[in-house]
Amino acid sequence: MMEIETLKLAKALIAQPSVTPDDHGCQPLLMSRLSALGFNIETMRFGETDNFYARWGNQGPLICFAGHTDVVPAGDESRWNSPPFTPTEREGKLFGRGAADMKSSVAAFVTACERLLLQQPDLPLRLAMLITSDEEGDGHDGTKRVVETLKQRGELIDYCIVGEPTAVDTLGDMIKNGRRGSLSGTLRVHGRQGHVAYPHMAANPVHLAAAALAELTAMHWDNGNTYFPPTGFQISNINAGTGATNVIPGELTVQFNFRFSTESSAENLRQRVHTILDKHNLHYDLDWTLSGQPFLTTAGRLTDVAQKAIKSVCGVDAELSTTGGTSDGRFIKDIARELIELGPVNATIHQIDECVDITALAQLSAIYENMLQQLAWPDASLHK
Amino acid sequence: MMEIETLKLAKALIAQPSVTPDDHGCQPLLMSRLSALGFNIETMRFGETDNFYARWGNQGPLICFAGHTDVVPAGDESRWNSPPFTPTEREGKLFGRGAADMKSSVAAFVTACERLLLQQPDLPLRLAMLITSDEEGDGHDGTKRVVETLKQRGELIDYCIVGEPTAVDTLGDMIKNGRRGSLSGTLRVHGRQGHVAYPHMAANPVHLAAAALAELTAMHWDNGNTYFPPTGFQISNINAGTGATNVIPGELTVQFNFRFSTESSAENLRQRVHTILDKHNLHYDLDWTLSGQPFLTTAGRLTDVAQKAIKSVCGVDAELSTTGGTSDGRFIKDIARELIELGPVNATIHQIDECVDITALAQLSAIYENMLQQLAWPDASLHK
Ligand SMILES: [Zn+2]
Ligand SMILES: [Zn+2]
Repeated sequence: MMEIETLKLAKALIAQPSVTPDDHGCQPLLMSRLSALGFNIETMRFGETDNFYARWGNQGPLICFAGHTDVVPAGDESRWNSPPFTPTEREGKLFGRGAADMKSSVAAFVTACERLLLQQPDLPLRLAMLITSDEEGDGHDGTKRVVETLKQRGELIDYCIVGEPTAVDTLGDMIKNGRRGSLSGTLRVHGRQGHVAYPHMAANPVHLAAAALAELTAMHWDNGNTYFPPTGFQISNINAGTGATNVIPGELTVQFNFRFSTESSAENLRQRVHTILDKHNLHYDLDWTLSGQPFLTTAGRLTDVAQKAIKSVCGVDAELSTTGGTSDGRFIKDIARELIELGPVNATIHQIDECVDITALAQLSAIYENMLQQLAWPDASLHK
Repeated sequence: MMEIETLKLAKALIAQPSVTPDDHGCQPLLMSRLSALGFNIETMRFGETDNFYARWGNQGPLICFAGHTDVVPAGDESRWNSPPFTPTEREGKLFGRGAADMKSSVAAFVTACERLLLQQPDLPLRLAMLITSDEEGDGHDGTKRVVETLKQRGELIDYCIVGEPTAVDTLGDMIKNGRRGSLSGTLRVHGRQGHVAYPHMAANPVHLAAAALAELTAMHWDNGNTYFPPTGFQISNINAGTGATNVIPGELTVQFNFRFSTESSAENLRQRVHTILDKHNLHYDLDWTLSGQPFLTTAGRLTDVAQKAIKSVCGVDAELSTTGGTSDGRFIKDIARELIELGPVNATIHQIDECVDITALAQLSAIYENMLQQLAWPDASLHK
């Protein structure tokens, strides 16, 4: 039975406590499997982060699977029903930290390549795996730097599949074909501290900023589009005051975040915020952090292939979505023509008793294999 | 020289470290002096607070001097140029904790009575002193309770002089003829916590409240009047957020304070705030604290007597003012027809190296004496 191979490899990966950014031997295991298939492997360690980029073949479109071997910490291990780094089968599920995010996807892609290349040693595709051990941490030395390196040498990926867990209720029900951008700001509005009994000697920054904040929170930034909901603005923290009730604060601090669609640019949002603050004559500092540009793969070849593969393997109609947080896809999109995220159900990720359906392991591997077959032979009927 | 007496008594009081609410022997000292003059003395200890009410005479209007023997802590004693509880003369000033707030005023009134009663044993006035040892602390058992007791027995003060330091630059330049009211609120606006990437699952209380806060901070509450500036509203503290930049806060807390004129009532201000919050459909809790009703003595007999006395003794034109924080006057006004505050320069109160001009001690005592003379013989010309 080939299907057992994905389960076995997933278990071998989960057994390694690769808490971010420590790869803890996961990547060597993957690299040995890929080497055996004839992949050319390039390790790229940056700082404390292990990464590798593996390539196979020299004809046809370049298909890259991207993922990570690191996991978030186990949390309170005593609350797990089985030890987090002891992969455990129970009630049709495989339990363990990383079972859903995302050691199963990584295993599923490796075994998909193994099955396919055994049958089709002349596969008319170029295959790649881009694996990092720092997706759950700060990520500075992970996918971002690998992509910078690949971009410098002119590597261009035709189709990229990121193995993040994207399914909501059942495998294949959702594909992410993009993500919103994330832009954060820390605003400090300057006033002049004083005593509440002598307001003419002070300038209350809360009062000075109140109308501007009302305007910012009421603003309609854009309408979104077919793929994105409208851009959203949220204040996460607001603070002013010494704690004393008779002191007018000297400064107001506001932290906020935009999740923005492709209908707005980071630069445009920044300008609009400054326009509002300046209109209210505020004296302020504002520090911006752009965590991620929005990226999008419109419905096309890659989404079509993925939806067909899912329908074939699972009988499910996959929805395209751009919801949720950011992912390493934001870096890779820079060198990838089309990029989607497709992995197992994400209901238990980062939680106690993280798990994946055991049947989903073989199905996910079959989906990846089916996608590769469609991309290799566009005109063939592949519905087995 | 009679003038030395005020200095001597002030020094004797300052030498007692009567840090609120510990009287530390100051009141017994005052009571022995007043007893010697024929005052009838009633001690009123409530809880940890020593108070006394002393009365002299049984004809004519009742003039009451009100004050306190307690002082705020010395702070960092090493920063004082002379020990805070060792009264020290230097460069024409008397240094020590309480020198300005308000042991000098208390001493000045006692010596004024001593001089006057020595010359005028048949003074056609009733005199009183209302002294507490808890004006600088929470004040629950101080002037408030003494006044409640006096009110129950029907005591009515015609003219009350509170000895708080009211002068700005030079003795006599300012008399307080009232104080604004103080009304505080703690507002908690309830929302629903969530992740910034999923705002539809959350309800941001900062966003919900922003327009209401803008309205509150822009509101014109009243126009004030001849004696009071317009009512002011100040937010002292505003806080929301967990500190994390990806979490929509679940609650917003806002602390605010009204300093209000006699043109607004506490009840009216409360209603107007609730009307604004309700108009914006906020789900909130709001706790109110009324620290003091506004009180006012319009220009009349007492202010006239005080201004004439100041002009006579110091050659200064005294300004009437209702600025600044609250004082025990807010309690006494309940049983006093007219009430003013008049004491030394307040520039150093509650600070390191608190001090009073030595010449101001005798002058202040002369002002009090002059006022008593004017009130005793309204038609006499007293300009010596
Ligand atoms: Zn992940
Ligand atoms: Zn005082």
